[in-house]
Amino acid sequence: MRLRNKPWASEKLNEYPQYVIARPEDHKGNWKEVFGNLNPLHIEVGTGKGQFVTEMAKANPDTNYIGIELYESVIVSALDRIIEADIPNVKLMNVDAKDLKEYFQKDDVDRVYLNFSDPWPKNRHEKRRLTYKTFLKLYEDILVDEGEIHFKTDNQGLFEYSLQSFSHYGLLLNYVSLDLHNSDFEGNIMTEYEEKFSSKGQRIYRSEVQYPQK
Amino acid sequence: MRLRNKPWASEKLNEYPQYVIARPEDHKGNWKEVFGNLNPLHIEVGTGKGQFVTEMAKANPDTNYIGIELYESVIVSALDRIIEADIPNVKLMNVDAKDLKEYFQKDDVDRVYLNFSDPWPKNRHEKRRLTYKTFLKLYEDILVDEGEIHFKTDNQGLFEYSLQSFSHYGLLLNYVSLDLHNSDFEGNIMTEYEEKFSSKGQRIYRSEVQYPQK
Ligand SMILES: C[S@@+](CC[C@H](N)C(=O)[O-])C[C@H]1O[C@@H](n2cnc3c(N)ncnc32)[C@H](O)[C@@H]1O
Ligand SMILES: C[S@@+](CC[C@H](N)C(=O)[O-])C[C@H]1O[C@@H](n2cnc3c(N)ncnc32)[C@H](O)[C@@H]1O
Repeated sequence: MRLRNKPWASEKLNEYPQYVIARPEDHKGNWKEVFGNLNPLHIEVGTGKGQFVTEMAKANPDTNYIGIELYESVIVSALDRIIEADIPNVKLMNVDAKDLKEYFQKDDVDRVYLNFSDPWPKNRHEKRRLTYKTFLKLYEDILVDEGEIHFKTDNQGLFEYSLQSFSHYGLLLNYVSLDLHNSDFEGNIMTEYEEKFSSKGQRIYRSEVQYPQK
Repeated sequence: MRLRNKPWASEKLNEYPQYVIARPEDHKGNWKEVFGNLNPLHIEVGTGKGQFVTEMAKANPDTNYIGIELYESVIVSALDRIIEADIPNVKLMNVDAKDLKEYFQKDDVDRVYLNFSDPWPKNRHEKRRLTYKTFLKLYEDILVDEGEIHFKTDNQGLFEYSLQSFSHYGLLLNYVSLDLHNSDFEGNIMTEYEEKFSSKGQRIYRSEVQYPQK
């Protein structure tokens, strides 16, 4: 119940400015300051309840993480996890991915993670998929040169689409697994959706793509 | 037994010059003459017992097909099919794919099919895979500009590898299915291996890739 109570969620997000970046537009070009170090910054777009980003931050203390999530009612659960984890290298932003360039400029971000992004299966919704070319352009505009996108999904149609979209954008396919949980990939950190779908016997697909050298 | 009797197989291949191209090097740059028309030429590399190439030829009378197969003992079965089909637009070549440029020059070929190519799973055998970069270069050198490769396999590892190899070669991924037999792809023609593996419940992977505009 409480998760859908927006006024409450909003209030809670405001109570933890050390974890929830209140005015991300103020830090554009200056993210090293926010974290107080020169470590690389990896962002997850559509972070949901934040398990991936929090566990990644625990496992990789020399990398900074920001989980980006549109819905207050969802991101408060990620906040709970981060409060519990009590570590300095993971933060949250309650914004829409389509506005990423208001908050980040070229070279601010070292890697983009997309995990179990909404599939938008209908053709007429193609533009909403987070691997549509306009989003690939957005990520390019905030990433370092030769930056990478790491993408996982259980959704076969979205994975097929995304491989084609990456290829036509000119991205290099450096890694692809068509069955992550039966592969020799090591150190996988599961997201909430990944746990749910893989426990139902669904295959998990994963790829790493890279913007080409200019 | 007879299939492994090479002298016999060789003799049989020689008996059908209308179906088995005896001296393919003589037709380099002149393949339209061999078929007596201006229709496009599609080749299948590693054609095996020839079901795919023969059925494709029946279904597409305005396209010419050549099935290329290294082993006499295998290609004689393809010959039996073609004799039975008795159509003018499919022929065979008993040669090694690594020598394609002895038989074809730039623009001779309109499309390359690779079906259930040997996976060569060991890293040290990477160069033998028919989707290794040296083979992609060979196909480029005999195909028309913006020519396509259509590739099917049941082998997950080979498909993952091939997607990466295509991408790094600069090929465009125009189509990808991660479960062909449960997709809406129409008019699929099965190969012998495809029938065998799909009847065992294996997924079939398929992709169409294209050399980019120059
Ligand atoms: C299917 S969930 C996956 C959540 C999580 N990554 C996981 O794997 O468990 C997708 C999430 O992306 C968020 N989302 C979708 N579009 C977004 C956008 N434009 N900006 C920010 N978040 C978005 C949704 O609100 C949802 O929480
Ligand atoms: C696994 S079988 C698949 C046959 C058929 N395409 C199918 O799908 O049923 C692979 C075939 O490729 C042939 N082959 C492998 N390497 C080749 C090469 N370098 N040149 C020509 N044929 C080759 C093999 O002899 C074998 O018949």
